Amino acid sequence: MKSSLYWIGCFIGALSCQQPDRSASVPQAEYAIAIHGGAGTIVKENMTPDLENAYREALDNALTIGEDVLKNGGTAMDAVEQTIIYLEDSPLFNAGKGAVLTYDGLAELDASFMDGATQNAGAVGGMQIIRNPILAARAVMEQSPHVFLTGKGAEQFAIEQGLDTVPNTYFITERRLEAWKQTHPDNPPPKTGILKTTRPVTDYYGTVGCVALDRAGNLAAGTSTGGMNDKRYNRIGDSPVIGAGTYADNATCAVSCTGHGEYFIRYAVAYDLSARMAYLKEDVATAANYIINQRLVEKGATGGLIAVDHNGQIALPFNTPGMYRGYARPGERYVGIYKEE
Amino acid sequence: MKSSLYWIGCFIGALSCQQPDRSASVPQAEYAIAIHGGAGTIVKENMTPDLENAYREALDNALTIGEDVLKNGGTAMDAVEQTIIYLEDSPLFNAGKGAVLTYDGLAELDASFMDGATQNAGAVGGMQIIRNPILAARAVMEQSPHVFLTGKGAEQFAIEQGLDTVPNTYFITERRLEAWKQTHPDNPPPKTGILKTTRPVTDYYGTVGCVALDRAGNLAAGTSTGGMNDKRYNRIGDSPVIGAGTYADNATCAVSCTGHGEYFIRYAVAYDLSARMAYLKEDVATAANYIINQRLVEKGATGGLIAVDHNGQIALPFNTPGMYRGYARPGERYVGIYKEE
Repeated sequence: MKSSLYWIGCFIGALSCQQPDRSASVPQAEYAIAIHGGAGTIVKENMTPDLENAYREALDNALTIGEDVLKNGGTAMDAVEQTIIYLEDSPLFNAGKGAVLTYDGLAELDASFMDGATQNAGAVGGMQIIRNPILAARAVMEQSPHVFLTGKGAEQFAIEQGLDTVPNTYFITERRLEAWKQTHPDNPPPKTGILKTTRPVTDYYGTVGCVALDRAGNLAAGTSTGGMNDKRYNRIGDSPVIGAGTYADNATCAVSCTGHGEYFIRYAVAYDLSARMAYLKEDVATAANYIINQRLVEKGATGGLIAVDHNGQIALPFNTPGMYRGYARPGERYVGIYKEE
Repeated sequence: MKSSLYWIGCFIGALSCQQPDRSASVPQAEYAIAIHGGAGTIVKENMTPDLENAYREALDNALTIGEDVLKNGGTAMDAVEQTIIYLEDSPLFNAGKGAVLTYDGLAELDASFMDGATQNAGAVGGMQIIRNPILAARAVMEQSPHVFLTGKGAEQFAIEQGLDTVPNTYFITERRLEAWKQTHPDNPPPKTGILKTTRPVTDYYGTVGCVALDRAGNLAAGTSTGGMNDKRYNRIGDSPVIGAGTYADNATCAVSCTGHGEYFIRYAVAYDLSARMAYLKEDVATAANYIINQRLVEKGATGGLIAVDHNGQIALPFNTPGMYRGYARPGERYVGIYKEE
C-alpha cells in the first residue's frame, strides 16, 4: 500500500515537477494525420518555384488521400497505407519511385508498419522489385508470424502475397540517375574498396512517413525509404527498424522518423518518444522536441520526426534546415517545407 | 530556475515514491560479466547428464575467457567479443557452429554489438559464410559509418575486413541436420508455399549473449544467433536489432536478450530496460524483472535477458522453464540452466 508521503510527493510533483500536459489542454481531435517526405538541407535558395509547388501539391494530395480515409470512418492503418502508397509512387520523394541509388546503381527499398492497437508490426529491408514496399511491410505484419524480412526472402514473401513487382528501373528517375552518374564517373563502379560517401551525408535524408489517429481511437505508423544515397553492403537504416524509425502504441503515440538513420537506431528514437510519454508523462510535443532538438543535437545527429498522440495532438520537430511535412485534423490543414513557416 | 516546491517534491519523492535502488546499496564491483546461451523449454527430463555437464562446462569456460580479459584490465568490448567467439565456436549453442537450420537447410546468422561508452553499435543479419558473426558486427561498428548490414553485402564487408570465411556446412552439426531432416521429409523442400513452423516456436530460443562492465567503468553488450528454427524469407529476429536484442549505455546498463524475437522487437525490450532505469529510476533487477516476468508475460511473449549495470549489478530474468546462463564478478561465479538453481 502506498504511504501518505507518496501521495503528498505526487501532489507536490504535479504542482511543480511536470511539464505542462499540452495534449490534455486541447479538445480530443476526432481524427488526425501527419506526413513527412524527408528532412535535410532543404532551403529556398536551392529550390525552383516549380519544384517547390510540386512538393507542396504532392504533400497536400497525400494528406487528402489519408484524410478521406479517416473522415469516412476508415482505419488509421488504411490511412497510413494509402498515403504512403501515394508518396512512394511520387517521383519527388526518396521512397518507391524516385529512390536514391545505391553504390551499385540500384534502388534498394526499406519500409515498416505498426498498429498501435495490437502493437503488431512488419518490416522489410533491401527489396529491389516490389512496387510498394509499404504493402510488403503490412503483409509481413498481417500474413506472417514474423516482423522483419529482408532481401530476396522478403521479395519472395511479397510475391507469394500477390503484391505487384516491377523491374528495378521502374524506381529510377532521371534526376537520381544523373546524380549517381556524377559521383560514379568510373561506371561500372568497382565492386570492392572502402566505404565512401561522395556527398555530405547531411545533404538530404529522404524518407516518407505517415502517422494517423482514426475515429475509433486507434493509432498507426508507417515509414518507407530508398535509404542513404550511395549506400553499400546491403546497408539498412532506421526506417525498417521498429523502435528506431517507426513505432505505434495506442497508449502513447504513433511516430515516423527521418534523418541520419544510424543515430536513430543507436538512440532508439521512435521507441524513446513512446517511453518518455509513458514513463516521464511528457506530452507528445515536449518529448518529441526534447529528442530531436536537444538529445540528438547533442549527439550530432540530424533529422526529424512526425508524431500523433491518442488525443490527436501532433508534433513535427526537425533539426535540419527543412523537412517536407504536413498534417490534417477536422477543419485544419498545414503543409510546410522550410524551417520558418 | 526550479521552484522550492520542486525540491520539496523531489525530497519527499526520494523518501517514498521510488523503488529501492538496490544497485546503490551494494558495493561497486570492479568488473562484472554475464552470459546466456538461450532460453526455452530446457528441462531436466529432456537432458542427459553428459549433455548437462557439457553445457555447464561450456558456460563456465566462456565466463573464464571473459573474466580473464576483465581481470587483466581489458575492455568490456574485448571481453564480450572473446566470450561470444567461444560460444559461437561451441556446437552446443544456436549461434555460429551449431546454428539451427532455415527452411532451406542452411545456417543463416545474425549478430550485434554495442559500446556503452560511445553508444556506437554494429549489426549483421542473414550471413552464411562468415565464421564469427560477432566479429562482423564489431567491424561494422568500428570500420564503417553504418550500423546495420545484411546478407551478401554484410558478407562482402566482412571479407574486406579480413574476417575468416567458411563454407555454410561448417556451421551445420549432425544434431541440427537430423532435426531438420525429420521436419523436411520431402527433401529438398518446396521453394514456395505458406509459412509454417513444424515444431512449437516455444521450444528453444537459441541465442548467445554477453554483457560486461570493465575496470574503467565501461559497459558493452553483444548477441549472436542462428535465429528461429525453420525460418524463411530471410527472417531477422531481435538479435541484430539494436534496441530489441542488444543495448548498452554507460549511464544505465548493458543488455542482451533471448526469446521469441518478434515480441522483443515489438516491445523494444533491450532499450526499454535502459529507458526504465533512466526515466523511472528503477534498478536493473527491478526493471529487468518487470519487463520479462510481467510485461512480456502479459503479452504472451517468452524469453529472458541478461543485464549488468554501471555498478556491476546483474540481472538474469527469464520466463521460460530454463535459460543457459552465468555470471562472474571478483570472487563470485554462477552457472545455471533450470529455473530453480
